[in-house]
Amino acid sequence: MDNNISVQMKVETGDAGYVLEDVPHLSDYIPNLPTYPNPLRSNPAYSVVKQYFVDADDTVPQKVVVHKDGPRGIHFRRAGPRQRVYFTPDEVHAAIVTCGGLCPGLNTVIREIVCALYHMYGVTKVLGIDGGYRGFYSKNTITLTPKVVDDIHKRGGTIIGTSRGGHDKPKIVDSIQDRGINQVYIIGGDGTQKGAAVIYQEIRKRGLKAVVAGIPKTIDNDIPVIDKSFGFDTAVEEAQRAINAAHVEAESAENGIGVVKLMGRYSGFIAMYATLASRDVDLCLIPESPFFLEGEGGLLEYVEKRLKDNGHMVIVVAEGAGQELLAAETLNSSTAQDASGNKLLQDVGLWISDKIKKHFARQTSMPITLKYIDPTYMIRAVPSNASDNVYCTLLAQSCVHGVMAGYTGFVSGLVNGRQTYIPFNRITEKQNNVVITDRMWARLLSSTNQPSFLGPKEVEVQKQVEAQTIEGENSKPNDI
Amino acid sequence: MDNNISVQMKVETGDAGYVLEDVPHLSDYIPNLPTYPNPLRSNPAYSVVKQYFVDADDTVPQKVVVHKDGPRGIHFRRAGPRQRVYFTPDEVHAAIVTCGGLCPGLNTVIREIVCALYHMYGVTKVLGIDGGYRGFYSKNTITLTPKVVDDIHKRGGTIIGTSRGGHDKPKIVDSIQDRGINQVYIIGGDGTQKGAAVIYQEIRKRGLKAVVAGIPKTIDNDIPVIDKSFGFDTAVEEAQRAINAAHVEAESAENGIGVVKLMGRYSGFIAMYATLASRDVDLCLIPESPFFLEGEGGLLEYVEKRLKDNGHMVIVVAEGAGQELLAAETLNSSTAQDASGNKLLQDVGLWISDKIKKHFARQTSMPITLKYIDPTYMIRAVPSNASDNVYCTLLAQSCVHGVMAGYTGFVSGLVNGRQTYIPFNRITEKQNNVVITDRMWARLLSSTNQPSFLGPKEVEVQKQVEAQTIEGENSKPNDI
Amino acid sequence: MDNNISVQMKVETGDAGYVLEDVPHLSDYIPNLPTYPNPLRSNPAYSVVKQYFVDADDTVPQKVVVHKDGPRGIHFRRAGPRQRVYFTPDEVHAAIVTCGGLCPGLNTVIREIVCALYHMYGVTKVLGIDGGYRGFYSKNTITLTPKVVDDIHKRGGTIIGTSRGGHDKPKIVDSIQDRGINQVYIIGGDGTQKGAAVIYQEIRKRGLKAVVAGIPKTIDNDIPVIDKSFGFDTAVEEAQRAINAAHVEAESAENGIGVVKLMGRYSGFIAMYATLASRDVDLCLIPESPFFLEGEGGLLEYVEKRLKDNGHMVIVVAEGAGQELLAAETLNSSTAQDASGNKLLQDVGLWISDKIKKHFARQTSMPITLKYIDPTYMIRAVPSNASDNVYCTLLAQSCVHGVMAGYTGFVSGLVNGRQTYIPFNRITEKQNNVVITDRMWARLLSSTNQPSFLGPKEVEVQKQVEAQTIEGENSKPNDI
Amino acid sequence: MDNNISVQMKVETGDAGYVLEDVPHLSDYIPNLPTYPNPLRSNPAYSVVKQYFVDADDTVPQKVVVHKDGPRGIHFRRAGPRQRVYFTPDEVHAAIVTCGGLCPGLNTVIREIVCALYHMYGVTKVLGIDGGYRGFYSKNTITLTPKVVDDIHKRGGTIIGTSRGGHDKPKIVDSIQDRGINQVYIIGGDGTQKGAAVIYQEIRKRGLKAVVAGIPKTIDNDIPVIDKSFGFDTAVEEAQRAINAAHVEAESAENGIGVVKLMGRYSGFIAMYATLASRDVDLCLIPESPFFLEGEGGLLEYVEKRLKDNGHMVIVVAEGAGQELLAAETLNSSTAQDASGNKLLQDVGLWISDKIKKHFARQTSMPITLKYIDPTYMIRAVPSNASDNVYCTLLAQSCVHGVMAGYTGFVSGLVNGRQTYIPFNRITEKQNNVVITDRMWARLLSSTNQPSFLGPKEVEVQKQVEAQTIEGENSKPNDI
Repeated sequence: MDNNISVQMKVETGDAGYVLEDVPHLSDYIPNLPTYPNPLRSNPAYSVVKQYFVDADDTVPQKVVVHKDGPRGIHFRRAGPRQRVYFTPDEVHAAIVTCGGLCPGLNTVIREIVCALYHMYGVTKVLGIDGGYRGFYSKNTITLTPKVVDDIHKRGGTIIGTSRGGHDKPKIVDSIQDRGINQVYIIGGDGTQKGAAVIYQEIRKRGLKAVVAGIPKTIDNDIPVIDKSFGFDTAVEEAQRAINAAHVEAESAENGIGVVKLMGRYSGFIAMYATLASRDVDLCLIPESPFFLEGEGGLLEYVEKRLKDNGHMVIVVAEGAGQELLAAETLNSSTAQDASGNKLLQDVGLWISDKIKKHFARQTSMPITLKYIDPTYMIRAVPSNASDNVYCTLLAQSCVHGVMAGYTGFVSGLVNGRQTYIPFNRITEKQNNVVITDRMWARLLSSTNQPSFLGPKEVEVQKQVEAQTIEGENSKPNDI
Repeated sequence: MDNNISVQMKVETGDAGYVLEDVPHLSDYIPNLPTYPNPLRSNPAYSVVKQYFVDADDTVPQKVVVHKDGPRGIHFRRAGPRQRVYFTPDEVHAAIVTCGGLCPGLNTVIREIVCALYHMYGVTKVLGIDGGYRGFYSKNTITLTPKVVDDIHKRGGTIIGTSRGGHDKPKIVDSIQDRGINQVYIIGGDGTQKGAAVIYQEIRKRGLKAVVAGIPKTIDNDIPVIDKSFGFDTAVEEAQRAINAAHVEAESAENGIGVVKLMGRYSGFIAMYATLASRDVDLCLIPESPFFLEGEGGLLEYVEKRLKDNGHMVIVVAEGAGQELLAAETLNSSTAQDASGNKLLQDVGLWISDKIKKHFARQTSMPITLKYIDPTYMIRAVPSNASDNVYCTLLAQSCVHGVMAGYTGFVSGLVNGRQTYIPFNRITEKQNNVVITDRMWARLLSSTNQPSFLGPKEVEVQKQVEAQTIEGENSKPNDI
Repeated sequence: MDNNISVQMKVETGDAGYVLEDVPHLSDYIPNLPTYPNPLRSNPAYSVVKQYFVDADDTVPQKVVVHKDGPRGIHFRRAGPRQRVYFTPDEVHAAIVTCGGLCPGLNTVIREIVCALYHMYGVTKVLGIDGGYRGFYSKNTITLTPKVVDDIHKRGGTIIGTSRGGHDKPKIVDSIQDRGINQVYIIGGDGTQKGAAVIYQEIRKRGLKAVVAGIPKTIDNDIPVIDKSFGFDTAVEEAQRAINAAHVEAESAENGIGVVKLMGRYSGFIAMYATLASRDVDLCLIPESPFFLEGEGGLLEYVEKRLKDNGHMVIVVAEGAGQELLAAETLNSSTAQDASGNKLLQDVGLWISDKIKKHFARQTSMPITLKYIDPTYMIRAVPSNASDNVYCTLLAQSCVHGVMAGYTGFVSGLVNGRQTYIPFNRITEKQNNVVITDRMWARLLSSTNQPSFLGPKEVEVQKQVEAQTIEGENSKPNDI
Repeated sequence: MDNNISVQMKVETGDAGYVLEDVPHLSDYIPNLPTYPNPLRSNPAYSVVKQYFVDADDTVPQKVVVHKDGPRGIHFRRAGPRQRVYFTPDEVHAAIVTCGGLCPGLNTVIREIVCALYHMYGVTKVLGIDGGYRGFYSKNTITLTPKVVDDIHKRGGTIIGTSRGGHDKPKIVDSIQDRGINQVYIIGGDGTQKGAAVIYQEIRKRGLKAVVAGIPKTIDNDIPVIDKSFGFDTAVEEAQRAINAAHVEAESAENGIGVVKLMGRYSGFIAMYATLASRDVDLCLIPESPFFLEGEGGLLEYVEKRLKDNGHMVIVVAEGAGQELLAAETLNSSTAQDASGNKLLQDVGLWISDKIKKHFARQTSMPITLKYIDPTYMIRAVPSNASDNVYCTLLAQSCVHGVMAGYTGFVSGLVNGRQTYIPFNRITEKQNNVVITDRMWARLLSSTNQPSFLGPKEVEVQKQVEAQTIEGENSKPNDI
């Protein structure tokens, strides 16, 4: 993938430190485009809505913990229908693609894009690209109508298929151009949205009247700026089932240990929230929080102590936790990547289970029983819960409104409870991580009673690192 | 109940239209109270937290859709631990009471208040008041320890019992004074928090060093200012089950109609969100949206049309919908109230089922099969889901932090994704309602294809009414 | 409906008291029918089966508690594929109809009849009759193929619709004859199977080569001879949810009473099993066990005692319980029937709730909180669980095997764990009831600690009544 | 473990080939034991029961598919309360132990033994042995009362803990003797019941008045004679969740393969029933059905074909399937055993996933996506469903009745729908296996369309092997 994106952000400033990070628009590079009245005007459902069109000046601040005299900071454009649109219904030829791993809610997002286009804007040409990015050039498309998508929100997975990788810029944009597609909806994670940005750049370079919009998908909740990613609530809910099982197994055995591996390649949000929601967990390991096994203050010492005190324990480990420890043991793991460019991780759940088993095998006085549960694919594949269903609806509708209004190169996302349009680069340039010096992680430590595995010096380092890079501007999911 | 509360709000203003609606503090009426360093300083879990104490100047705006040059508007004090506290651990004698109907999450809130007091602040005297307000003076108390509350978040209901009414100000405050209780945590709805305000006033009048704090509980989500009430997500989720059943029953019969009554005395949020999440609903009736039965454009005409088109339909009706129609038919219903002072409603589900049956009984050509489902008590009694569990934890901890810091006369609540302290009167002086001229309701109309039952003139009236009373300041749950 | 069925049973006897109650066969009234080798012979899935054809002499005893020297008693013909069939694949024109109320598993039965006909016997003409018996003459049919029915077992309800009544013998048999239908699969309860018997008689009278077979459907488990009806396990499982909710509501209130009404028009099996499975129930009322309200040893006295002892209680009441008490109060209820000929019952749940409320309203010293839950339509509409799914498969396949082999006028049913063919009249001539002098009901009494509400004299009467009528021959579900 | 059990069965014969395989009794080796009237006589719950005592002559046949003139075959003694008991309430000192892996329903069985002893027989000394067999001599006991066990049936696992191995005959019987235990309830699988038989032999040898009774526990359903083991239904139900997830994952990827490993060390019942209930499975592999990977008619060929036809597939594999193939690849696996003496199996799920991946990696033209799910510990740990709850109640009560009546050396088990007492050796001398030449497996093959992987010669061999060893006497779960 060509990652050299020439990012040139549209920024507007105002009084009292007000900054608007705006999103691109078709009119930025195509002059004199005709516009049309928004068809929602004549939609009976919307006829009673006081202000069915979002005020063009509406913006949403990224930072909502403010001081009386503090600067107003970064804002994003509020999502919603605009007075005028840049497409006639007949002109629209939309395509939807889903990329990367499964996540609860994918089908709801697909359904609601289709329904919004059909029912709100009178569009009738909507295609599903089959099987992720490579579907643009290697497979037939799937015709999507309200009838086809009617019940799909009750099923897990994605009816148009998905895959990793396959991002071939020229082939994809050629396909878009050849097929006459002028609205591209791209649902996927970090890497996918980087790819979407590249597609947008190329379309812009070619001067095509075609918009590219994304809906960020990450079951790990590792995308920054937005409040949370769709499917996350459902995943945390479903993870409870595995934690409960681990707890039952652990309680029923002498020195029983239940180990549950949860998703979280680089960010431990699912592990952290599942632990907080469950309260049956004695140790939660996440990528952001380093730990060590042997010696005083180490993990094995804590496990031993816990078993002696309670007779059993439950460990939740995010898949990306402790990878530096695994890497140190195995030389060949350093460079492997999957087709999306994600670093291939070794199975930390098996690894840590093995370490614990070996540790206690050396101590004949304390036989343990360890059960390891990896519910990953059972979590990913469930249908989204009611809350995520509504959330996906809002994301999809917001995205369609923005696209019809001619915005491009953006994702729709919830910021402080409001739907907004966010430029691609703001969500791809860094990751959302659990800030282990914020209060949410402290809550977890307090709930599990686990040690922080940090010495005082490391705490200091952590604080300074974060002070520089995060500046508290969007630490929200950690620091509510 | 004595409702003559002399409200005197603490308001602070700043530049650019900044307004802080502050909460009372013990020091407002007791001079020279000693303070102590917050014990969290030495709590190992919190030792790594960068800024474990909330900046005293942190506030959260009520309004987050802003314009570049708009005024900053109302703010609330941010919740969280303070540098100094007004109670020593030994001094604290806390009491928790739950009032009104059941709501998923009650036990989690109880659990987390107890755990926060014990584990964060070293408090060891926590009582449960048995069975709501009247438990203060008519029953024994329940000793609450972390061990007692350990598993209660996995059970529905409230382990300390609840009831309606029983608010006898002198008896309650006498009991507080006699028992030496100096922290009162009151979990309940609108009426309960009005009662809490009265208790706070009386305690202040008597000059007692005792704080009164509330956690708003309303399964209907009808409390204003806050983003949403705890248990609401769980209730919407559980309501899906009843809607699914109604759908199955309706589909399996000729001209099958499934009617589901959901909670919502004055506000139709559960009905609206459950309808949006399900997408199997053809008609959703809420208290905020008037309708009429007979004649052109009426409900019965729509039902008939829908059956002719689809062969079956699902109706969701909030319990408070159409009460003016029921009242018109029955004279004796006008003044009855339950012990909490809530107007006793007639069962609109049975009423509307009866009306529909009678209508079609008159038309021999179109026999219908109608099944009525009232899942109310099955919804209220489920344990909270993972998302609500985490939410309840934050509410409880925020409340305890505020209480320890000497604040009183407040509720803790989530505002734009941040925990805040809100003065009692801000959440009791009016209700949160579905604004039927906002976009969320329009989304519902678009999803169900039901008519608005409003003529053009009524739309105009609605818009003006809302323009005056709401002013858009917190229409958020409707207008995302 | 013409109920004058001239029953002439096919009975065969043997040594040691052996009796075979056989089912009719096409060859009983049509001589010289050609037969064909069973196509299963060449089905690869069945090619490895040792004895894929049931031995023509296999029978299953109705009674399995035996004495060394006791008589062998009644037997039924074992179900399963026969060596020779009476239809060629091309000749078959099958129709499936579902009648009466919903029951978990209906769709699975439909699916598996279709799949068995297609995949095992190469049949390709299968119709669904739309909406119960009246669909034969008043509606279009639905074409059923394996593709159409592929996923329906995951949905509740019946995809071909159902209704009560509509049994018009001449019209139905005319329709069968006119359409050339020669296999009729009728899924329904007691009344429906009586109707099936009538259709069989008429077809036999007309000398048609058309078989009529039934699959007994009764969520109440009130059909005799068979081990249990499909959907029953699922219903008992789902009922737990309502009982749990009632328990939570009751526990959270002072003198809280949770009342749950469960299905069971004439037989209290669901109520009894749900109570046994749950163990949270303090009182279970069923049609078979009379009770009285007032005075010493009455229900109200027991409720009062229970509340004084425990502070709360849960009551489960089958819909048919106490109907003689309700009838005594209301004159007009005596003769009303629904379209299936079932006696229209008054809502005993509301009635008993009202009685209890009024009783305690008279006693100001003991205010109660009563919550009433009627989960009926939520239970009926769920998809069948795994166990019922497998059970429905066996019932459907057995039925198809029998039909292809030329048997007619029978239902397929599980007897002592084996699939059998049972003559219509054996399952319609009486009902399966909870025998309250058997051990299962004693277990329930022991579990709930409720009184039997029987005086010694009544016990004696009960024992004698049952001794005469039941003779222990199939008291199995009560007396395991 | 000393497996040299001198088995001497108590057999009684009668006319027409009647055989009763009876269970031992205390009076077999202790003469002149006093007996007492059964306390159930005066239990109010049982006072209305017509025949609350089982007729001493009641027996249940093992074989219920019979011919008019066939022999009557083996029978077992019917379970249930007897007129006279061999223990006074005060005399009883009961102990309960659970051994081996977790299984849904363990807690219900424990609960109901305790409640039956207390409530039916007035016994007040019931101990739980902590953590399996070794708990007899290495740990403290747990006092079990109705209050302690009140809610445990709603939780998975076993509250008294379990473990494998630890069967030290002298230490265990010494402990029984030293503590004065005179009723030992042993809940566990095949190996555990062999151990129970050894304990019974030793107790008999020592002439102790102490009875040993078992309740067979095997989530795999691999215990012969009995209809099915408790927890099996729950396990099959829970397995659906994993199969659904595998199906969603497979459908959402190009050439997606979902592999689910289910329990089934030697018997494929869970895999078979879960496949039949789900109908989303394309290939089910069980220990009883050999298969091969490479070449014509092999598994890999079938996978390839299936992917080409459908684009995705779901594979269910029982843990014991294909072990001979794995063993052939790895030399060191031949002799390893776990502490219960079970052969340690290699993970066939990982192995087959690896084989499939490697096969398609060689074929660059057909990239696949394979997801492997191992839900084992999530299935084992769930609470039992309603049906299993009732079943466990009957098993526990039957066992207690038999023990009080002085029977020993038996397990209680359901045979053809009736509770019976079965001698230990009848359930330990061989296993219950899926008979792949019976119709249930044929149904599965027909449902999945998978090949049988058997050549004609192998079919012949299979048939003969089974003809000799099984003789159809209890092939019931396969051949309904």
